[in-house]
Amino acid sequence: MSEKVLPARATFRTRKSRSPHSVVLSDSILDIGTVEPIQFIDLTDYINEYLRVNAVESGTVTVFSRHTTAAIKINEAEELLLEDFKRMLRELCPSERGYNHNDMSRRKPPIAPDERPNAHSHLMHLLLSTSETIPVIDGRLALGTWQRVFMVELDGPRERQVMIRCEAYHPNEMAEAVELHAVDGGNGRNRAAHHRAHLK
Amino acid sequence: MSEKVLPARATFRTRKSRSPHSVVLSDSILDIGTVEPIQFIDLTDYINEYLRVNAVESGTVTVFSRHTTAAIKINEAEELLLEDFKRMLRELCPSERGYNHNDMSRRKPPIAPDERPNAHSHLMHLLLSTSETIPVIDGRLALGTWQRVFMVELDGPRERQVMIRCEAYHPNEMAEAVELHAVDGGNGRNRAAHHRAHLK
Amino acid sequence: MSEKVLPARATFRTRKSRSPHSVVLSDSILDIGTVEPIQFIDLTDYINEYLRVNAVESGTVTVFSRHTTAAIKINEAEELLLEDFKRMLRELCPSERGYNHNDMSRRKPPIAPDERPNAHSHLMHLLLSTSETIPVIDGRLALGTWQRVFMVELDGPRERQVMIRCEAYHPNEMAEAVELHAVDGGNGRNRAAHHRAHLK
Repeated sequence: MSEKVLPARATFRTRKSRSPHSVVLSDSILDIGTVEPIQFIDLTDYINEYLRVNAVESGTVTVFSRHTTAAIKINEAEELLLEDFKRMLRELCPSERGYNHNDMSRRKPPIAPDERPNAHSHLMHLLLSTSETIPVIDGRLALGTWQRVFMVELDGPRERQVMIRCEAYHPNEMAEAVELHAVDGGNGRNRAAHHRAHLK
Repeated sequence: MSEKVLPARATFRTRKSRSPHSVVLSDSILDIGTVEPIQFIDLTDYINEYLRVNAVESGTVTVFSRHTTAAIKINEAEELLLEDFKRMLRELCPSERGYNHNDMSRRKPPIAPDERPNAHSHLMHLLLSTSETIPVIDGRLALGTWQRVFMVELDGPRERQVMIRCEAYHPNEMAEAVELHAVDGGNGRNRAAHHRAHLK
Repeated sequence: MSEKVLPARATFRTRKSRSPHSVVLSDSILDIGTVEPIQFIDLTDYINEYLRVNAVESGTVTVFSRHTTAAIKINEAEELLLEDFKRMLRELCPSERGYNHNDMSRRKPPIAPDERPNAHSHLMHLLLSTSETIPVIDGRLALGTWQRVFMVELDGPRERQVMIRCEAYHPNEMAEAVELHAVDGGNGRNRAAHHRAHLK
């Protein structure tokens, strides 16, 4: 079938890393206090600043919501558009409708101590996403001109945690160390210094 | 625009790996037999047990559905809520409506031998997800309190396959081996032993 | 809760890599010219050909749209079904409805030079995805029989860019090099040759 829906024109531009890489892992929790029932919070500047401070040049970032009523989505940070988003979510998942999840008389434990009737928030979340995976190139999220990364509060106000999982790719300094060894006849001191410099 | 939608308060907590890591890859297929037309199957305990058996301490898991009418989503495993999810999906994508995909007289091959009128199942899937990517920390999926990982059957009963792609991160034992070499003057036997111990 | 929704039957089949791997990273931009307002463009053959040309045997591909009105989704490439998808998107997000985002008199800069009333396109995108993450096994996307990877144009015709981020996993040739060193008594020339062969 696929031939039927191939584009009229498509071209590739490729940039390939010159050597094998190792992964340096860092996990961060972004604590966020929300103030509205539905709120789009732009995390893009936070994440790019995090990449700058941690000197991440190349890698992959996974932005992961630790909640079932707060989502992660990429779209445009235009104020009027965010109002349109909120209206669509409210219309697709109206809070005033009757839901099984909101009937506490039928709910089995465990029930969250701060539980409130929020079936509509879970339904909105089912239509959105728990995480976004974003390439990092030249020290920044490789986003298009209008793309911004949002945490979408769907049951606010609440205290939220967003995990920023960063896989930074570093050239295998061992490869260079062993090549150096082959060239310099095995001077351990040189190689160790070379190695430490790379791990800084 | 982004300043306009930044949170009133946001703070970072970071934990960074001390050294470069290598990746140990494992792919598993989870064979699942479903019994209902729409069924939420909680895979969380399976995946955590898989991580325990394979001694994965740190890494990333991608849970990937190999089907176009079975999705992967993270939400809360509350029975009444799952009924609300099913109702929303049935209302957004009613099975009794007329669909082009269900008009077999117009369908071109290939057609699945067990094909049934299931356009509504494909539509539901378009609103959900094929996969979820989840960080692994301290040997478990780094999920929030109420998060569970579901395979969502949308055209059951059927036999399904979910791929569990696990990227486990291990410190680069080679780095330590070469540093040891620099210290111990290059005793190959010691270093090889050191190396094997790490790969166990 | 989870026990309540576990499947009647589930079994695991696992394939694990024998040694730690390094990552070879390659990023490609796929330039695509679209011709319809809503168009499903099947990228699967392009990506598999890309994997073949770059000799990627094992890894992970992230297909990432650099746009807020063009999405990436996996589903079936059946022509009649794609028409059903388009109808659902048009009904959930009608273009003729009034939207705040389309009221240029209230919009604050920056505004795209080629901006058109496209709030409905952004709304459709919010219900779809910016990217898909797909395992690569034996040199091909590890997709199920009916799965195809689409870029979904939601505001065409336009010029689009899709990023193909490929993380290829390669065995740590350094591990073998150091083991060889332990065996052959440290012949740098042999080991360097061994090493170069692996990096080719």
